[in-house]
Formats: sequence, C-alpha cells, structure tokens
Amino acid sequence: MKALTFDGVGKIKLVDKEKPKIEQPNQAIIKLVRTTICGSDLHILKGDVPTVEQGRTLGHEGIGVVEEVGAEVKNYQKGDRVLIACITSCATCRWCKESLFDACKSGGWQLGHLLDGTQAEYLRIPFADSCLYPIPPGADERSLLVYSDILPTGLEVAVLRGMVKPGCTVAIVGAGPVGLASAICAQLYSPKAIVCFDRDQFRLDKAREVGATECYKVNSAAEAREVSKGWFGDKDGFDVVVEAVGIPETFDMCQELVGVGGNIANVGVHGTSVNLKIDKLWSRSTSMRPVSGDTKAPLTQSVAISMALVSSHTIPLLLELMSAGKLDTSALITHDFKFSEIEKAYDIFGRAAETKALKVNIEFE
Amino acid sequence: MKALTFDGVGKIKLVDKEKPKIEQPNQAIIKLVRTTICGSDLHILKGDVPTVEQGRTLGHEGIGVVEEVGAEVKNYQKGDRVLIACITSCATCRWCKESLFDACKSGGWQLGHLLDGTQAEYLRIPFADSCLYPIPPGADERSLLVYSDILPTGLEVAVLRGMVKPGCTVAIVGAGPVGLASAICAQLYSPKAIVCFDRDQFRLDKAREVGATECYKVNSAAEAREVSKGWFGDKDGFDVVVEAVGIPETFDMCQELVGVGGNIANVGVHGTSVNLKIDKLWSRSTSMRPVSGDTKAPLTQSVAISMALVSSHTIPLLLELMSAGKLDTSALITHDFKFSEIEKAYDIFGRAAETKALKVNIEFE
Amino acid sequence: MKALTFDGVGKIKLVDKEKPKIEQPNQAIIKLVRTTICGSDLHILKGDVPTVEQGRTLGHEGIGVVEEVGAEVKNYQKGDRVLIACITSCATCRWCKESLFDACKSGGWQLGHLLDGTQAEYLRIPFADSCLYPIPPGADERSLLVYSDILPTGLEVAVLRGMVKPGCTVAIVGAGPVGLASAICAQLYSPKAIVCFDRDQFRLDKAREVGATECYKVNSAAEAREVSKGWFGDKDGFDVVVEAVGIPETFDMCQELVGVGGNIANVGVHGTSVNLKIDKLWSRSTSMRPVSGDTKAPLTQSVAISMALVSSHTIPLLLELMSAGKLDTSALITHDFKFSEIEKAYDIFGRAAETKALKVNIEFE
Amino acid sequence: MKALTFDGVGKIKLVDKEKPKIEQPNQAIIKLVRTTICGSDLHILKGDVPTVEQGRTLGHEGIGVVEEVGAEVKNYQKGDRVLIACITSCATCRWCKESLFDACKSGGWQLGHLLDGTQAEYLRIPFADSCLYPIPPGADERSLLVYSDILPTGLEVAVLRGMVKPGCTVAIVGAGPVGLASAICAQLYSPKAIVCFDRDQFRLDKAREVGATECYKVNSAAEAREVSKGWFGDKDGFDVVVEAVGIPETFDMCQELVGVGGNIANVGVHGTSVNLKIDKLWSRSTSMRPVSGDTKAPLTQSVAISMALVSSHTIPLLLELMSAGKLDTSALITHDFKFSEIEKAYDIFGRAAETKALKVNIEFE
Repeated sequence: MKALTFDGVGKIKLVDKEKPKIEQPNQAIIKLVRTTICGSDLHILKGDVPTVEQGRTLGHEGIGVVEEVGAEVKNYQKGDRVLIACITSCATCRWCKESLFDACKSGGWQLGHLLDGTQAEYLRIPFADSCLYPIPPGADERSLLVYSDILPTGLEVAVLRGMVKPGCTVAIVGAGPVGLASAICAQLYSPKAIVCFDRDQFRLDKAREVGATECYKVNSAAEAREVSKGWFGDKDGFDVVVEAVGIPETFDMCQELVGVGGNIANVGVHGTSVNLKIDKLWSRSTSMRPVSGDTKAPLTQSVAISMALVSSHTIPLLLELMSAGKLDTSALITHDFKFSEIEKAYDIFGRAAETKALKVNIEFE
Repeated sequence: MKALTFDGVGKIKLVDKEKPKIEQPNQAIIKLVRTTICGSDLHILKGDVPTVEQGRTLGHEGIGVVEEVGAEVKNYQKGDRVLIACITSCATCRWCKESLFDACKSGGWQLGHLLDGTQAEYLRIPFADSCLYPIPPGADERSLLVYSDILPTGLEVAVLRGMVKPGCTVAIVGAGPVGLASAICAQLYSPKAIVCFDRDQFRLDKAREVGATECYKVNSAAEAREVSKGWFGDKDGFDVVVEAVGIPETFDMCQELVGVGGNIANVGVHGTSVNLKIDKLWSRSTSMRPVSGDTKAPLTQSVAISMALVSSHTIPLLLELMSAGKLDTSALITHDFKFSEIEKAYDIFGRAAETKALKVNIEFE
Repeated sequence: MKALTFDGVGKIKLVDKEKPKIEQPNQAIIKLVRTTICGSDLHILKGDVPTVEQGRTLGHEGIGVVEEVGAEVKNYQKGDRVLIACITSCATCRWCKESLFDACKSGGWQLGHLLDGTQAEYLRIPFADSCLYPIPPGADERSLLVYSDILPTGLEVAVLRGMVKPGCTVAIVGAGPVGLASAICAQLYSPKAIVCFDRDQFRLDKAREVGATECYKVNSAAEAREVSKGWFGDKDGFDVVVEAVGIPETFDMCQELVGVGGNIANVGVHGTSVNLKIDKLWSRSTSMRPVSGDTKAPLTQSVAISMALVSSHTIPLLLELMSAGKLDTSALITHDFKFSEIEKAYDIFGRAAETKALKVNIEFE
Repeated sequence: MKALTFDGVGKIKLVDKEKPKIEQPNQAIIKLVRTTICGSDLHILKGDVPTVEQGRTLGHEGIGVVEEVGAEVKNYQKGDRVLIACITSCATCRWCKESLFDACKSGGWQLGHLLDGTQAEYLRIPFADSCLYPIPPGADERSLLVYSDILPTGLEVAVLRGMVKPGCTVAIVGAGPVGLASAICAQLYSPKAIVCFDRDQFRLDKAREVGATECYKVNSAAEAREVSKGWFGDKDGFDVVVEAVGIPETFDMCQELVGVGGNIANVGVHGTSVNLKIDKLWSRSTSMRPVSGDTKAPLTQSVAISMALVSSHTIPLLLELMSAGKLDTSALITHDFKFSEIEKAYDIFGRAAETKALKVNIEFE
C-alpha cells in the first residue's frame, strides 16, 4: 500500500509499505476514505517532535471503512463507515474513565507519532471499540474531516476549559483552523460576542463566515485592546480568551485581553515557555486601568489559565449536534486533493498564509 | 486616638489622629479590640504598594465593638462584637453579586491601603452591613483574628480554586501563615494527603500540628519531587498544588509538582512575572518521566492555574464551621502584644524566620 | 390614579387610588408604560392565593419610567426607563447573596400580592436599586414585557435547574407562555431536540415558531411516549423534561418521559400534591421497557426533580443576550390593549384556549 | 460447591452447585473469602423482585481471591485479593463512560439477581477488569465488606446527589446500614451538623458512634421538626435530607425537614409511589411558617429531589480514603458467622430490630 512517511527533518516521502495486519484482538484495520494534514504534522517535519521515528506514517485524522476487526472488537464490523479519533484510548484505565483520553496509559497521541497514522491507504487502529465512531447517516464526510481533531479541540480545550457561558464575551487570538473551530463551538453556549484577532484578513473573513461577531487585524496587544474595548464593560476585558497560535507574543496578548474573573484557555502548541504576568493578573496596577473615574482604585483580578491537549471524548456529542443541524464546518475545508497528490497538499498547507489553506481534504481512490 | 501609620518607605509611626466620624449613612465606627499584622503590611513598608500614601493607618484585619452606626446600617448596633473583613464590599455591584468582593466597584482591598485601617483605636468601616460579621457566642477571639484575611484566603484562593476534593493529593509550597491556613481549610474536603514544603523546620512543625500529613524541608524542585514521589501515583504529581510564597522559584516548584489533570492555585503575592512552562505542562516530554516502563509514551498534561485575591465572602461559612468545632486556628497565633507595643510587634513579625512568628495578636487596652 | 384591584374571589375592579409616595429611602416611584397579565393573576382571582387582600392592586410585570427616587437609591434617577422585576429583593440578605431572590427575607413575590402591583398608573417599588433594570437602548419594549417574569422563569426554573446542555434532548409539557419561554431559553444551550406537547394546536404552532424542533398534540402520557420515542435513544426517555402546566396529569406525563439520568424541572404552579413514582423512577421494571433485546435486563434510573419559583436574578443576563440579538420574544405577545381596557384584557387572557391569547401588551396613555 | 439460593417466596436453601467455569474471556472466577447480606436480599425473599428466578444464588457483596481469569482480563491474576462491586459494568458503553454503571447496557445490578451471586464458595464475575478492585495492603477486610454496596451508596446516592458541602446541615431519616454509611460519607465534606432520626435507640447510638452530631428517636414529622429546629436557621429546615428507609411516611418526613434551597436525596428502596407535596415545596404557605415576625411573608422554596441506584464507581476513591485513614466502617459489622451458618445469619439479619444486626460478616472456611 501507499503511505506518506516522515523521512527526517524537513522531509516527507510517499512510499510502499506492507498493509498492516491485526496483531492484538482489540485492533481493527481501516481502509482510508479521506485524510487531512494538521499543524502538528508540520511541527514533526520541523523536527519539533523527536519521538517520531524516520519512516513513521504520518496523520492522525481521517475517515475510513472497516476492513477487518480483531476478536475482541464488539462495536464494529467489516464495511462500517467510521471517523477515526486523533487520540487512541483503552477506555478502561483511570484516565479514560475520567474522559482524559489524552493521558490514556496505553494510548494518547499515538497515530502518526508513535504508531503509523492515517496518511496511508490502510490503518491499524488499536482499541477499535473506543477509537472509532460511526459516521451518522447522510453526513457530509468532507466537512466531517475536522471532527477527528480540531473540532473536539475547539470544544474541549477552548470552550469547555474556557467556560464559555450564555451572555459571556469570547476573544479568540488566532483565526487558523483551531481558532475557527473554537469560534464554531463557542456558539453552542450563546456568548454575546466572539471577537477574533489575527494578522491575516482571509482568516478573519473566514472567522466572520463561521460566526465570529467581530474580527480585527491587529499587530499588538495594545492595538487589540483598543479596537475591542467596547466589549470590556466593567470587567476591563473578556470573560474567555482563547490562545490559538502558540507563541509568546500571542500568549501575552491573551493576558492583556482577559478581564476580571476571566479565563485564558490555551489551545496553541507552544515550543517554549512563556512569561506569565502573575504580578499583574493577580491585581492590575492603578495607573494602567482606573475604573469608575477613581484613579486610585486598583482593579483586582481573578484569572485562571488552562492548558491541555484534546482528549477527543466529545466526538460523539459533536456528531449528534452535527446530525441535529447545529454545526456546520464546511467553511473550514479550503482545498481538495487525491491521495496521490499528498506531497503537493503538504506544500500548499505548509504555505497557508500565501495559499489561504485551512484544512485540506485528501481523498483516496 | 492612637494609630499606626505608614511614614514612607521603610518607616512606620505611631501617631495621634482624630477619631473618625461617620460621613456616609452606610458606615459604622468600630472600636478595635484586637488587630494583627499581615505580610502585605510588610510589602507596603518595602514600598511595593505605591498607592499607599504617607500617613495612612495600616491594617486590614481585626476584631472590634460597634461604637456608632450610620442611618442606613440595618444589621448592627452599638455594642455588637464584630469581625472585620479585610475586603470592603458594597454588596450590590455586579461583582459583589457574584461574590467577587475583591473586585467590588466601590470596595476591594481598601483598609490600610486607600482607607485608614485597623491598626488604630477606632476604624470607620464603609458598607458596615456587608463588611462586618457578628462574632459567634463563645468564640476564642484570639484565634479568630485569622478569619479577617488568611483563613478565607486559604479557603477561597487555595482550596476552592484549587478544587480540593475527597481523596485527592495536595502539595503546599510554603508553610507561612497563608500556607498553614490553606492546610487547615483543605481538610474540610478530606484529601488523602497534604504535603507541605518549606525551608524552615519550625513552620513545617506547625504544618504538621495543623494537620499536614507530611512535611519536607527542601531547597529545590527536584528535591521536592524526590521526597514526595510516593504520592505521585500514575498522575506523576499532585492533584492540587498551592503556591504560598510568591517568588519565581516557588512558582516553578509548583509546576514541577503538579500532576496530570492537576491545578496550581497561586496564593503568594508576586512582585514580578514568572516563567510559565506552557510547552512542558501541555505535554511533558518523554525522557523526563516515562510511565509504565514504556520509554516512548509521552505523558500528556492538562493543567489549570488560578490566580486571585481573597474575596472574603466565605467568612460567614468559616465562622459557622468554627462554631461547629470543625476549625481550630489557635496554632497560628504565635505572639501577643499590647497595641502600645505595635512597633515592637512589627519588628518581631518582620523577622519571622528568626523569631518564629506567624500571626501576632495585638490587643487594645 | 387608576389601578386594577382584586375585589374578592372572581372579581376585579378598576378604581381610583391615591398616587403612591416614597416611604422608605430605598424606594422609587415608577410611572408605568406597559404592563401585562400573568397566569398567577388568574390564580388570585380564583381565590387560590388567600394572602392577597381585597383592594390590592394586581400585577408583577411591567415597564416604566422612574418618577422619583428615595435618598438611598443610587443606580436610578428621574426619567430612567426601567424593567420591573417580578420579584423584589433587598440584595443583602443571605438568600439574595445566593441569588435566591424569591426567598429574600424582605422581598420575594410581593408585587400584586402583598404590595400594590404594576397594573396601575404608578408603582412604589421597594429596593429600587436591586428590583429595576435599565432598558437597553433600542429595545423593542413590547417584546420586553416577558422579561419581568416568564423569560427568567424559563431560564432559571426550566433550563438551569433542568440542566439543559449541548446535544441533550428536552421535552416541554405545556406550550403556554412559560413553556414557550422555556423553549426559547433552552436554545441558549444548543440541545439537539426540543419536543413540545400540548392539547392546543395554536400553542404548538407558536412553539415551533419560537424554535421547538417537534410539536405534538397529545392526550396521554402513553401517546406522548409513542410519538416522541425517536428521541429516547438508549436512555429510554428525554434528558430534561419541563413541567409547564401544573396539574397531576402533566406531572405524571413528565415522569413517563424522563430518561435514565434525566431531570424533571417543574415550572407549573400546582394546587395539589402529586403522585411521585419513586418506586419506578428508581429502577423501572423489566416488563415495561426491556432494552437491547434482553427481556431480563431491568432499566435502572437516576432521576432528579426540581421545584422552584423564579428568582429573576437572570434578568440582566437575558437583557444582554437580547441586545446581542440572541433572543426574540416577539411571538409571545398576542394581543394589545390600552390600560383603560384592562378589564377586557383580563377577559381575553382568561379565555386563552378560545382567544389564542399568550401574553397581552397593555399600554398606558 | 455450596451456594445459598432463592427457593421461592419466603424461602432460601443452601445447596450443592456446580463450580462456575469461565464462559467469556472477560470473566474471572473468584473464591469467596467473606460475604454479607443486604436489605435487598430480604426484598427478594419477600417476592418484591420477580426477576429473581428460583435457584438463583443470592448476594452481591463480598471479598475473595481470584481463582482463574479469562483471556481478556488484564488487571488481575490468580491469587489477587479483591473486593467485588455490587454492580457489574462493561466499562465501555455510554453509561459506563458517564460513571452510571447501574445503567450499564450489559451490566447493572446482576449479581444475586440475574446472575449467581456472592453467597457461594465461588463466583463467576463478568467484566472482571471493571467489577473487581484490589484490596489495599493491610486493610481490615471485615470492615471492608461494606465497600461492595452500602458505603458507595452512601457516598453516591446520599452525599454526592444530596450535594453535602462544608458548613451545611444534613438530616438522615433512618439509621440502618445505609443511613449510617451516609453519615460516615457525609463527614468527608465537613457539614456543620449531621442529625439522625430513627425509632430504634440502638441504631441511633450507632449513628452517634459513626459521627452523627445529634440523634433523635421520633415517631412523626412534626416531632422531628420540633426536636431539630435549632438547626433550621433562616432556611426553615435542613440543607440536605437523606431518605434511608423507603416508605411513604419517611419520605414525607423528608419533605417536612428540607429547607429553602435544599435537596432530598432518596436512598431508600420504595415499594410504592409516594405523595410529593409539590404545591407546598414550591412555596410554603404563610400560616405554617412565618419568618422574621412578618406573618404575611410567604416562605418560598426551591427544592430538588434525586432518586438513584448506586453505581459503585466511587469504590476506588473510598478505598483510597480508607487507606489514608479517613474512613472507619468497623462499627457497621455487628455479627459474625461461618458460611455454613448462613441460614442462621439470614434469620438474625431478618430480625434486625430485635437482634440489633446491621451488617453481618460471613466467612468462608
């Protein structure tokens, strides 16, 4: 079979590989129908994830058809159409029981990382009963590609950990695929404002298309505060701020945008530590932001910051909401390729600023 | 009347002042019975709180007797014995309605800061109905001094925001007054372990006296991890980590001690920003902490950090628990002074490492 | 001034009354602009609320203009346009601090009950700072009439206590004004289905208009189960069931519709006790509802039932959501009257089945 | 092997049975070390549970040693000492993923009901990986017998669903084994009062022994209100009321004892429906309970009632708390028997009022 593999820093290679076989009774073999490329695949290429060995098949997102199941697999059989979760989970360890599949003792982020992934004609998936989800009848499978990873990331890491609630204000720093997925999922809880910040006008237009209420092209935290201050109210900032970039500058912008009693939900994957303004977030100084005309009153702060990897346990919920017509992710797919063109897809996806790529749909013949 | 005032950086002065009068109908005049000194009073002396003017009466903790009430005060009358909350609150602004008194639009941390405080014979308290609490009959008022600030700080900022739950593991970094108050309050939720770290053996002995289950004298994060690893379990760290010091080194120790899915509750008052290891907390690297014998499995992390000032809204709850015999804070009071000796009390309290001072009881004649 | 008063069981009377004067400094006098009639006004007429004295001005909903404020009122001044909360609250008692205004020690449901109400040209409102809300600029005040009582009732008693969540299924038994308000508010949390049951086709049409996903005209619990079983899934019922009628038959229907782990939120005002099938809800019997083809497997149940009066503390949230375009209540107003026609309005509203009345808009000249 | 079986209504029989064999790879065979008798075993004898067939081995509680494991069992091996959960669970169905093991699609209450139970020398346990828990080293296994069912029932159904919190007041109606287990578990959350009601002085003495703060022998709801009114405060009742009997009279007593904003957690197994005073709980009438000297102010109510079966998912938490010295259940075991005496044990347990039996320890030779 054909598989796209990591060929050392900066290199990918489309190779012929042995079709995988079932080795444990909880596994299944999936014939891929569609796959896509994630920002973390580019991180691997850059050499940021040293645990990926040369020759590893990449990819942790996709849709396929069950080809064969192991003896212990109870929920699926040959021919079932399935969505593949980006996180593998045993379903029985203490972390899985708490829905923290990302910390699963026998799973976690393994596909396209420690195990061969979804950018190949066939995939061996461990714990098939807990790592696959049936495709709802009538679903638009092209739009469904984002349900493997970025949509549950938006819900779990941005919206739930950020505690989006009816009537709250949400700022999203970074309108890439995950920022946009966060904007879509935030609407499930009826915030009164979803304000997106980015440097790229195309992405901001997409943000508006998926439901952001205001979008700003900004270059600094001060600029972001200035343009969005209409939403600050007496909290002097937003209720929920989503970091969806992953660099110190954007993390800092989040610290400047979060209001009294607010939450920063970090979604971006960071390569370095960041500077936490704990002295300011605890109690902002007088001179910066006086309130109520009283220049002496210090504005105190109670802020929480969360950092997490997606668990993917919300995939069934998201599929139900999609079936009920409550979610539309079609705007997130910007390009289409055949699997034989996957190297070109990497090139296009890797130059996103220029090519206006968000998520790519890669179809198998 | 006599009042202890801020006399410029590094200086305090016991002066004669005019006895305060009621200026607004929601105010009351309190004749102080006991007061105490807080770490933040020392911060003021060091010049860390530039909003404090020279001549300001210090102190935000205390017990007194109502001397006079304004026309709008409904809950108190002359002669009532009351506990003074460290945070003043109007009770009606949007923050007060959410129990974030620290962000009160007309209040917050004002006593001994923007308003004359409790280290004086008389105090004018604004919003008397919401800033005073009746002393329960039969209470040991000496022990009750910590109910103005550090005990609600322990409950609100460490225990509630840290989400201490039955059966969880709690690490407390710093066994000063607030760390000890956190250890006392954590027991309300039956954690299976409360492990305290400090460099001072006296404070660690106090920690054990107030209910910590293990206490370690350590000098580094690595050392702290080593001695407490018996509690890590499969989370590779603690469920809740309380920062109760306020310097970058101890904040970093907290990052090293927090386990998968854990919370860091920051209580310490920081003078600078700190380094947040967002790249590591999000997903710890393989080489550091392999689990289950599999050196390839990366241990992912889902961590939340909270930073807050005390609101003091839990004072009535704490008073009820005290009356029910569920709280004993007597171990926190280490020294006793007359108010005329308050300058000496500052000296003793300011050299705590040497004098073994925690909280001091200062009585008015 | 003119006022509509209770004139003994079955009788109302439009009378001339002394214009109210401020008697306490926390009060305000409101000149009414619009008022409406509630189901509980009809209950009073039937004699169900013996605490209402003859001569009492009725009404607890309305919009007005501030005419005069007492000395303690800080948030409002003459000329402000305000929404009147149906529940009065002191803002400072322990219940108000917990947002249970309905249990306020000096308030609760008083307007048109123990105090003269809103069906008069002028109203004296106690605790003006906490019982009034500013009308957002540009609001459609006719639609806003439902924000005094039934919309917060829908949110607080049905949606929040029922714990509506994204992707859940909601059944609403009774599509009168409060049932419809519940259907509107439920959508703030993106349930996958909102299924309404009633005997009246007009009300069911309205339910669909305000966003119910399915509407059924049914006469029995068995019929309701039969038509809606497509939503039962493996829970054998709905996640949230809202009782919005207030008679034993409809309460029983709710018990039959609630699924495993579900909640019944009771909104209807009941005149008698009801039969709670605690023996069945705890663990439903085999013969009734076998699952998975196994006729032996008993379907266990974990059900919670909540009963409450509106507190009205969510009015500011609802007003913000309205301003953000997230709420449209215009469909709930079915008839318009001048205040001089209020007796006719009572007649129309009292024969709702026949007149298709939901909420009536009564305007003052 | 020997097994105690149901022999038709009113009859039990100690018989010889074939030793069970593994039939599915997820099963294990357990050699029993200790078992006990539950109130539901008596219900079965009375004929209240028609799904129990004649010849069924009774019992759903016990401690044993693993004798043999199926091919899929990963967590246990021959020789492991284990606690048996009263509820069997597949760990992978949607209910198990939500920790509602009682609703497990392939499990639930099966032992001693639909499958042969623990009152036999050997037991075949399905889903061994999820239905067994390792005995902590050094545990007192006699005290541990209550961890199979009644202790998790106390925590899950009474304390967690009743929402016991620090400083709250808890009333427990019925001081039998499950009421006492509720009293033990409630202490994990530091309520300020745990008040027990029963008709039996011996049980009340036991309640005090396990930590109840007050115990009353009462015969009516009015009497219960009278003796405990010191705890009512301004809520006019208790925060949490636990029904631990299961008859209409005691359910009614709970309705009379619950305060404003309180919860009734129903633990008792009811044989009939009960009368829910929804008209009173929603808004209590004036004449009954005036507050604050104002005979006109109606006391409104916001009450929630929960009904559930134990899920047993808290067993690992309880075992950890036991190991940490936070739980002592030794007072609950009142009698000891050899397994050959089990018929006598049934007799003693069945005449509990007379014999002062709570839980019996039945040891296998």
